[in-house]
Amino acid sequence: MPLLLPSGTTLVAATHNPGKAKELVALLDGRFDILSAGALGLPEPDETESTFVGNALLKARHAAERSGKIAIADDSGLSVAALDGAPGIFSARWAGPSKDFAEAMAKVEERILETGSDDRSAWFTSALAVAWPGGPSVVVEGVVHGTLVFPGRGTRGFGYDPIFVPEGHDKTFGEMDPAQKDAISHRALAFAKLKAALFD
Amino acid sequence: MPLLLPSGTTLVAATHNPGKAKELVALLDGRFDILSAGALGLPEPDETESTFVGNALLKARHAAERSGKIAIADDSGLSVAALDGAPGIFSARWAGPSKDFAEAMAKVEERILETGSDDRSAWFTSALAVAWPGGPSVVVEGVVHGTLVFPGRGTRGFGYDPIFVPEGHDKTFGEMDPAQKDAISHRALAFAKLKAALFD
Repeated sequence: MPLLLPSGTTLVAATHNPGKAKELVALLDGRFDILSAGALGLPEPDETESTFVGNALLKARHAAERSGKIAIADDSGLSVAALDGAPGIFSARWAGPSKDFAEAMAKVEERILETGSDDRSAWFTSALAVAWPGGPSVVVEGVVHGTLVFPGRGTRGFGYDPIFVPEGHDKTFGEMDPAQKDAISHRALAFAKLKAALFD
Repeated sequence: MPLLLPSGTTLVAATHNPGKAKELVALLDGRFDILSAGALGLPEPDETESTFVGNALLKARHAAERSGKIAIADDSGLSVAALDGAPGIFSARWAGPSKDFAEAMAKVEERILETGSDDRSAWFTSALAVAWPGGPSVVVEGVVHGTLVFPGRGTRGFGYDPIFVPEGHDKTFGEMDPAQKDAISHRALAFAKLKAALFD
């Protein structure tokens, strides 16, 4: 019996952010009924793993075991070569409880300057995991490489998008229109891999 | 395109133990050509994750990315309720570099006595991961619950088998003949889940 996610399946999104759950519906081509873990009253697990795929897997398995339904989770962030991969899985944490990414981007610049390195290469990673309750899980990862620019440019996207210029492009993710970013982003790549693996 | 492992596929076993690689051939019904990561000269990654599935995934992905072939990895161990799940992912480490499991079992007993708890429940976990290079990974987990007995009994099996009596049985894993253990073990359960998910 191959692992497949037939259209119309009910999926629990392992997030407490209603906006993220809604966005998932669109990213999965509207094929599924998405319930958010938050709306189901499920607790949020500690993200104790040291990798994006590890944390996505942990969140999806946690939601699947507690809901008894197939669950999906993501984990993503920015890794900076000069910072040995930081902020990485701590990308959201660098923005603090107020989710202030202007502050997080300033921290990235400051830390890079402290190293004295002129390496500005960085990469965005997006990991996705789908877990069957009591059964297997599938994980995929999308990565896009690029270069950091300071000060950041553009007001689109979110998070660290304004300081990231993807390889082969001149605009930052913060300057691109959504369709352009969606064609090349780490997240789009991860979803494409997930669809290739699990859509019938 | 569903995720499947067709018969005759070449798989890299993410282990440097030739005995383990050979055992995998049998556990996978002889359907695959197994190469060991050690024989290919691949480095061993640090097992940095905090869960069995996380470490199995990390090892399989590492071997797949470096070999360019589909890779399989496992991670397993004993978790003791009175020790908050220890030794868990550190089960092999408790036996030291000389892999002395008599010492590891003595340590488990000593630590439990230190807690003053009379809870002797424990569980064995086996995680398996299969990773496609540049593509998705599939992970499964098998768990068997039971009770610890001291002193251990039986000389069969390996690791912590002599002190573990699986639920619904009187013999320890160390006393069971291999066919009996293979019918109920955490490892057998994990392989059964993997086969159900990925065999055509």
